[in-house]
Amino acid sequence: MGQLAPNVRRGALDAKELELIQRYWQAANYLSVGQIYLLGNPLLREPLKPEHIKPRLLGHWGTTPGLNFTYAHLNRVIRARDLDMIYICGPGHGGPGMVANTYLEGTYTEIYPEIGRDVGGMRKLFRQFSFPGGIPSHVAPETPGSIHEGGELGYALVHAYGAAFDNPDLIVACVIGDGEAETGTLAASWHSNKFLNPVHDGAVLPILHLNGYKIANPTILARMPKDELESLMWGYGYEPFFVEGEDPNEMHLEMATTLDVVLTRIKEIQREARGPGKASRAPRWPMIVLRSPKGWTGPKEVDGKKVEGFWRSHQVPITDPRNNPEHLHLLEKWMRSYEPEKLFDKNGRLIDDLQALPPQGERRMGANPHANGGLLKQDLEMPDFRKLAVKVDRPGRSQAESTRVMGRLLEQVMSLNAVARNFRLMGPDETASNRLDAVFDITDRVWMEEIEPYDEHLAHEGRVMEVLSENLCQGWLEGYLLTGRHGFFSCYEAFIHIVDAMFNQHAKWLDASRKLTWRKPIASLNYLLTSHVWRQDHNGFSHQDPGFVDLVTNKKADVVRVYLPPDANTLLWVTDHCLRTYNRINVIVAGKQPQLQWLDMDTAIAHCEAGVGIWKWAGTESEEAEPDVVMACAGDVPTLETLAAVDLLRSELPDLRIRVVNVVDLMALQPQIEHPHGLTDDEFDALFTKDRPVIFAYHGYPFLIHRLTYRRRNHPNIHVRGFKEEGTTTTPFDMAVMNDLDRYHLAIEAINRMSRQSEKAADAKRRFEEKLAEHRQYVCREGQDMPEVRNWVWPYG
Amino acid sequence: MGQLAPNVRRGALDAKELELIQRYWQAANYLSVGQIYLLGNPLLREPLKPEHIKPRLLGHWGTTPGLNFTYAHLNRVIRARDLDMIYICGPGHGGPGMVANTYLEGTYTEIYPEIGRDVGGMRKLFRQFSFPGGIPSHVAPETPGSIHEGGELGYALVHAYGAAFDNPDLIVACVIGDGEAETGTLAASWHSNKFLNPVHDGAVLPILHLNGYKIANPTILARMPKDELESLMWGYGYEPFFVEGEDPNEMHLEMATTLDVVLTRIKEIQREARGPGKASRAPRWPMIVLRSPKGWTGPKEVDGKKVEGFWRSHQVPITDPRNNPEHLHLLEKWMRSYEPEKLFDKNGRLIDDLQALPPQGERRMGANPHANGGLLKQDLEMPDFRKLAVKVDRPGRSQAESTRVMGRLLEQVMSLNAVARNFRLMGPDETASNRLDAVFDITDRVWMEEIEPYDEHLAHEGRVMEVLSENLCQGWLEGYLLTGRHGFFSCYEAFIHIVDAMFNQHAKWLDASRKLTWRKPIASLNYLLTSHVWRQDHNGFSHQDPGFVDLVTNKKADVVRVYLPPDANTLLWVTDHCLRTYNRINVIVAGKQPQLQWLDMDTAIAHCEAGVGIWKWAGTESEEAEPDVVMACAGDVPTLETLAAVDLLRSELPDLRIRVVNVVDLMALQPQIEHPHGLTDDEFDALFTKDRPVIFAYHGYPFLIHRLTYRRRNHPNIHVRGFKEEGTTTTPFDMAVMNDLDRYHLAIEAINRMSRQSEKAADAKRRFEEKLAEHRQYVCREGQDMPEVRNWVWPYG
Repeated sequence: MGQLAPNVRRGALDAKELELIQRYWQAANYLSVGQIYLLGNPLLREPLKPEHIKPRLLGHWGTTPGLNFTYAHLNRVIRARDLDMIYICGPGHGGPGMVANTYLEGTYTEIYPEIGRDVGGMRKLFRQFSFPGGIPSHVAPETPGSIHEGGELGYALVHAYGAAFDNPDLIVACVIGDGEAETGTLAASWHSNKFLNPVHDGAVLPILHLNGYKIANPTILARMPKDELESLMWGYGYEPFFVEGEDPNEMHLEMATTLDVVLTRIKEIQREARGPGKASRAPRWPMIVLRSPKGWTGPKEVDGKKVEGFWRSHQVPITDPRNNPEHLHLLEKWMRSYEPEKLFDKNGRLIDDLQALPPQGERRMGANPHANGGLLKQDLEMPDFRKLAVKVDRPGRSQAESTRVMGRLLEQVMSLNAVARNFRLMGPDETASNRLDAVFDITDRVWMEEIEPYDEHLAHEGRVMEVLSENLCQGWLEGYLLTGRHGFFSCYEAFIHIVDAMFNQHAKWLDASRKLTWRKPIASLNYLLTSHVWRQDHNGFSHQDPGFVDLVTNKKADVVRVYLPPDANTLLWVTDHCLRTYNRINVIVAGKQPQLQWLDMDTAIAHCEAGVGIWKWAGTESEEAEPDVVMACAGDVPTLETLAAVDLLRSELPDLRIRVVNVVDLMALQPQIEHPHGLTDDEFDALFTKDRPVIFAYHGYPFLIHRLTYRRRNHPNIHVRGFKEEGTTTTPFDMAVMNDLDRYHLAIEAINRMSRQSEKAADAKRRFEEKLAEHRQYVCREGQDMPEVRNWVWPYG
Repeated sequence: MGQLAPNVRRGALDAKELELIQRYWQAANYLSVGQIYLLGNPLLREPLKPEHIKPRLLGHWGTTPGLNFTYAHLNRVIRARDLDMIYICGPGHGGPGMVANTYLEGTYTEIYPEIGRDVGGMRKLFRQFSFPGGIPSHVAPETPGSIHEGGELGYALVHAYGAAFDNPDLIVACVIGDGEAETGTLAASWHSNKFLNPVHDGAVLPILHLNGYKIANPTILARMPKDELESLMWGYGYEPFFVEGEDPNEMHLEMATTLDVVLTRIKEIQREARGPGKASRAPRWPMIVLRSPKGWTGPKEVDGKKVEGFWRSHQVPITDPRNNPEHLHLLEKWMRSYEPEKLFDKNGRLIDDLQALPPQGERRMGANPHANGGLLKQDLEMPDFRKLAVKVDRPGRSQAESTRVMGRLLEQVMSLNAVARNFRLMGPDETASNRLDAVFDITDRVWMEEIEPYDEHLAHEGRVMEVLSENLCQGWLEGYLLTGRHGFFSCYEAFIHIVDAMFNQHAKWLDASRKLTWRKPIASLNYLLTSHVWRQDHNGFSHQDPGFVDLVTNKKADVVRVYLPPDANTLLWVTDHCLRTYNRINVIVAGKQPQLQWLDMDTAIAHCEAGVGIWKWAGTESEEAEPDVVMACAGDVPTLETLAAVDLLRSELPDLRIRVVNVVDLMALQPQIEHPHGLTDDEFDALFTKDRPVIFAYHGYPFLIHRLTYRRRNHPNIHVRGFKEEGTTTTPFDMAVMNDLDRYHLAIEAINRMSRQSEKAADAKRRFEEKLAEHRQYVCREGQDMPEVRNWVWPYG
């Protein structure tokens, strides 16, 4: 497997090319060290002095020379083969390396003209790194050519695959640190090759970089015997090629030859797949194992302790040169070992022959438009969602599965954009379970393993991606969006927490990107959270958790939106809307079970555009006076229970003036100064009154509503019911009862909060309490909900 | 690798044993189907009628026969070899199988006497499954013998390893579903073998169950070529043994023989390792690949569609037999195919010869005390933390790294419990980075791969577990705690979100367990979140996220605690306290950087015991009157900035009556009715006043303080500053400034909120604003914080 005979290794580079690539690598290494250490004297024109050194030394050296080595070699092959390639830097803390390389190739200065390609620019380049007002220490949105931060490790390979899907001419080089390789997501990501079709997808070239150490430990993959690692990669479905050593010249030859072999192999696979006879399963793609010393070319020892090739080179290998003359001397010696005078001319410009190494224009990895996906993004062709409307003659009489209706919309989106090949649906084995299977009328699930005759909707060409890993779904979609495409991720609500951390990182990426004018907007990341807490009565407590929204609302207001459409037509509007937005994360929460439908399409559109509104047809308030009570709801099950509670109250207490408010756009509850969708205080008061009791039935943990509304005038009168972490396997209605969110509890709460208590109200309350007791007896006896609950419909006009 | 020659396969079972195990398996399958379907007629004494069928059919058949098959075979070898074994059921939705088996072996009835081993008991057993007031559909805390839910997939193998550590005589059989095997955590968990020492740890026997399908898709591992799967397992460091087929007799012989070979191999490995000459690296442990049809022994087809061996058997393979006579007939035929009359006597009791198959007493997997870890838990020997106190003569003058002091406490805990071997420390490569390296005075990091001469603190016997996977750290610790031991997980604050979902599931497990008297309390899961948001100035935005606490506070109040000790002595008290608690999840947030110390040990103890208190020495209020302003703080950096703000205010406005309140136990802020640690309203008012402005500097997202205090009388006057998602690579103080949490902003806010504004206050405010501008200029010029900030100490007595 993938080991080259020694005599093959020599052919790739002639002596001149070898020297060129070595010096180019040295230039990148020099610039990397300079960024970590120097405030001034960037070209070492004078002896290094304490005042040239930054007062705080921040940055990570250990991984950087390996990243630079790889970048230089990829430059060579891009140029030699005219490749369309981007670079995913898994070890994102190797930020200095990516900055150095994009500076060397010229893209950095094109984007940031103040960082010129001269001595003054180099001084600024060094100074700004990890400096207040400057740039982050990691590869970040600020870094040209990057779609990947690499701060929270684990997502390099899954991002790489996301970028490669539907980009047939793109090769995504993906450096994976051996620390990162220990994470769960990365360990699962290798299997992404089973979902990559060589015909219409591009290629991913994983480069597993074994530098042997994490912060303070060896790594698992670097320490395992080579045959075991080889077997592991083979088992993951790859053909591994090893590039191992520490002598630079040997390593250059090895890497150049290996890249030539590997890229030829990739082309062969693609040529074969794209020819007349198609392969029956996923091809065995090549990958590279690059084993090089951590902190390569850095100081071998500092203060008598091993540094190069050890974890001590992880961050700043020589500490405090500002105050330690010996360390200052060591640093100067190290920097001069790269011979900067042979790399940069007297004006600080990279000398001409080195300028000839990297590719030109958009072939430069820092300038490749795939890494600034907004440049390539095209708006989706959108169908008219109105035509898919569920017919609702009278509210609350007929049933539909809302997500099934949404599935029809997604099918049409898939269809209208089939030629553009820029829309995918992701889900952990739940597309059909979540009732989105209309999409299978137009496409299939992508699957490159064997397909049996009795399999359904599996195909090499499928555009629905299903794998039992929320992490892979999320990561693929992120990579796909970041390279300018569109998508949707449907997930069981409780298990979306598996990607909490990835959501956080993507939100941070978007927040930072939005501040960079050169980064063009990308399509929003859209979630459908379904199989939600109130309808996981069959799977039990482990499947009942509506807390993702709480996490989401911690992020920057500009970036996040949360929608709780109460029925199919509102869900259609919301889905259409989300697919048209960009640079956001949209969370839609909607159930998949048959449920009563409330709004016809025109009403739904008006309601959704407002985000929140009074359902006059449901209430009993008069024009003349404020209502006695506001029954508010957000979410499909809370809406159902609220309307059923209103029905109970209307029957028992016909004089009660009830207002019903439904919230679709959760962010509308926040003050306008906190969120662009927020209602003004006057608008809020007009809906929720200034002083009347509000019984608010909310889909998730009740605290969130308080958090969003605590600044509102009427907040002291808002009484929220929601999920209070009571759950098990039971009936749907019993789930609501366990959490006091059911119609009877809501109606009782409304009575309790009324300003004047009457005999009649007390009687009604007693009857509701009796109903709750009756419910309990009934479900424990019959195993299903009472007919009057199961069969309830809205009885009014 | 691990394939047995055909002639070896026949020896394990004689004809009688074969028949016995087949019938035992049929009994388990019969009981499983019965749970999914039947309300009555449990022994099919009469023809099956619609009224015998549950009105709602909930449960998962597909995985169950494989689980039952494995359980039966493990029963045999436990008995034959007198093994101490537990069963981890990765496909937790196979709940009916685990319930059936523990019922068959008698443990179920011992724990739940109302479910007798007779026809009445069987009727109840069937009825209660997935029924309101009954038991969950999944393996759950309610299931005897389980430490693992398996609802959210991915954690079976990591739990298994956690259970095996320091349990040298235990064998943990771990069934991993091929769906689950696609998850990130599971994919990484295989490498746990590099951390398992055959001398003092037990063994894990992974049984990868390839039944081929998830909900609606084939699985990756089942579809890859066998040699590739073999290579993958070999690469993970295992020796795979394959048991494949569908003919029951053949499969019984294969499984029995393979188990004999595999268990002999495990014993050999252990004998060799525990003898005089020790192996130099992790042994190659055996594992089993069990390939059997999904829904094995169930209906082959329903309505002309393939069911057995396909994903359609995932849940309830025959739908609606209550209303569909043909389906009713099919169900009856299926159930009778197990020949219940040969399995149970006329009283519904398992017939005697079948009773002889499972082991007895605590050898039964449902009764093994390791699966009810509280039975085995011993309290930790605890050192006197007071002796480790940092000397604090006057508050706010001297510095210490709080977590370094805590490390000394952990070292002593490690030392005092070294013989008991019941305490471990987990962390993703950050124990030293998080300043807990005192523990390396007494132990090392466990590492079973090669160890180089220059490696530091790596050893086969180490008790610190470091791997770059928060999922593995969390999962190992959960498994370790659930089997009755103790531990601590230290993690970078931002990246703990990676385990949000696992935290959720563990919290749910604890919540459900606490309601079961037979489940004995286990040690709490303790987190130290350090390298926190305010001191990730060097790593930047991706490392800045304090939101885990928001997630935690969604869970049941009884289960969760959050502590924000402001200095080393308070951290010592909190750590000591947490290690003495049980059935909780304790989250401690504390920085690792040098910081001013505030409280001597006696004061720290009193403060922590109260959870929240007034720091009289810091304020300027008089006895006679309420303060003008309350400066409240929670967290170490907020405390520092608050006290510095108080210093500013005292200097500029000496007449201002300031109260300083510090919060260690965040849950104290909640109303007492919401949380057992909550303050009464009177207590709260006594601290925070009824009407004075409160400037609250909080460590995390400010909303949380509102959420905790919105019901308090003085809530309208509480103004919270916290992390508002502004971050990058900068200086520590600049991080505070970016989020308005710094001393100047806090002092300005105090002035803004004062009831009377004075000329003097306006002047002071102007000076603070100037200082902020000066700060900005200074850091952008110098790259570090102003000396007056860097060197600030508390200037008062």
